[in-house]
Amino acid sequence: MKSTVFYRVNFFDTDAMSVVHHANYIRWFEIGRSDFLRQNDISLLDLMADGYSFPIFEVAAKYHVSGKYDDILRIETTPQALTRVKMVFTYEIFREKDNILLVTGSSTNVFTKAATGKITRLDDGYYKKLIAGLK
Amino acid sequence: MKSTVFYRVNFFDTDAMSVVHHANYIRWFEIGRSDFLRQNDISLLDLMADGYSFPIFEVAAKYHVSGKYDDILRIETTPQALTRVKMVFTYEIFREKDNILLVTGSSTNVFTKAATGKITRLDDGYYKKLIAGLK
Amino acid sequence: MKSTVFYRVNFFDTDAMSVVHHANYIRWFEIGRSDFLRQNDISLLDLMADGYSFPIFEVAAKYHVSGKYDDILRIETTPQALTRVKMVFTYEIFREKDNILLVTGSSTNVFTKAATGKITRLDDGYYKKLIAGLK
Amino acid sequence: MKSTVFYRVNFFDTDAMSVVHHANYIRWFEIGRSDFLRQNDISLLDLMADGYSFPIFEVAAKYHVSGKYDDILRIETTPQALTRVKMVFTYEIFREKDNILLVTGSSTNVFTKAATGKITRLDDGYYKKLIAGLK
Repeated sequence: MKSTVFYRVNFFDTDAMSVVHHANYIRWFEIGRSDFLRQNDISLLDLMADGYSFPIFEVAAKYHVSGKYDDILRIETTPQALTRVKMVFTYEIFREKDNILLVTGSSTNVFTKAATGKITRLDDGYYKKLIAGLK
Repeated sequence: MKSTVFYRVNFFDTDAMSVVHHANYIRWFEIGRSDFLRQNDISLLDLMADGYSFPIFEVAAKYHVSGKYDDILRIETTPQALTRVKMVFTYEIFREKDNILLVTGSSTNVFTKAATGKITRLDDGYYKKLIAGLK
Repeated sequence: MKSTVFYRVNFFDTDAMSVVHHANYIRWFEIGRSDFLRQNDISLLDLMADGYSFPIFEVAAKYHVSGKYDDILRIETTPQALTRVKMVFTYEIFREKDNILLVTGSSTNVFTKAATGKITRLDDGYYKKLIAGLK
Repeated sequence: MKSTVFYRVNFFDTDAMSVVHHANYIRWFEIGRSDFLRQNDISLLDLMADGYSFPIFEVAAKYHVSGKYDDILRIETTPQALTRVKMVFTYEIFREKDNILLVTGSSTNVFTKAATGKITRLDDGYYKKLIAGLK
């Protein structure tokens, strides 16, 4: 199920074109992804304590309208594929006040063993929580 | 012609997985892009003084190997399409010490009038400098 | 009057010591300062539109306890001196769940004319709103 | 002995006032500090592998002149106190092209055991390298 979370643009998020610097949205996709996992009772801290890493494999974004200082952004995160070895999400970031779509994007994370860096498979406990998020 | 520029990974570029946070590479693509323009005698400050903006339209990255603190990265930026209305670049980021490819990516910027936000066309002066970079 | 605003620590805010990178708190002081001004009906966008800049003159922070991923931080911002030429604030950042004080700090902004960079004096409209925040 | 290292301001380092966002300088103090340690054959990675953390205890900065996009900054880092339990540095950041002093500052790090978070004392190996930097 989709996660929805809000973020207010700070002055430090802007650049000399007086808009949000585009790389920030890649960070904000992570806010959405973390929130999705949190809603499904998965904490990145627990994953790490259990020896998992979850590196990003790919990310992409399209920029439609520029965000500005003080805009309240609505970050909507939708799971596309959640397996024992990867998580694929898509993102839509809206300006809350007028519902204008600013940015769309996608990301793929893989699960690895932190100790070796090799791809691994999530154990049953995490996997069940994760796929519960697809409903 | 390709631009090559170097960046040493700082401690503040890392995250709790002890690797470079993935969003930083999107910023570092900008280092490559700025360097390419600088090599072709185009300054972002001049563009802005002349009323242009150059917002990002899309960006994408694939992550192959994680960068770490103190790695010296070699950012190679190759122009794919340079026109009066847009710039498309691809990027390869290597770990200099062993020439391992860490990240690949691409970006598209468009040129707009800063005053209106509308797509515009680069004037002859900038356009000639820009396409000189294709040789 | 004190402003209170909340910020949840993101994964991208952490560093390889698995704690919040210290420079982020300097950014989060700005979240508190912006919120204080917003509560007093002053928008940084309006200030800029009216030709003011508000550069930081000095900043300082003391770090007591490390923040971590997913901590909810409570940022309390207290005005110390608000005049036509400067704003001095102090900050206390608490971990909300157990009320532990993580970071304290202070900042001074000055008001300048954006066009010249010279120190200037706030006009009556802004000044009245600003000092109303002292009550 | 003083460390000197250079950093070119990127577009992503700027904010909507068209200058470097002030929090970045706090990050750049870290570039200077890391370089000082590197010159004295101390790697933060080695410190971490040996179970040390080196959290910041306090930081302060004064801002004299605003840095801008494409400025080449010269970061000069001077050790003030280097002991088994802490490192105190001062910083001066100059605009290289005209030698104008932009920012001055200071920082204190303490050494802790990563496992416990308690203050600890550097072993002889690191301590000798560290104080060699005072000459």
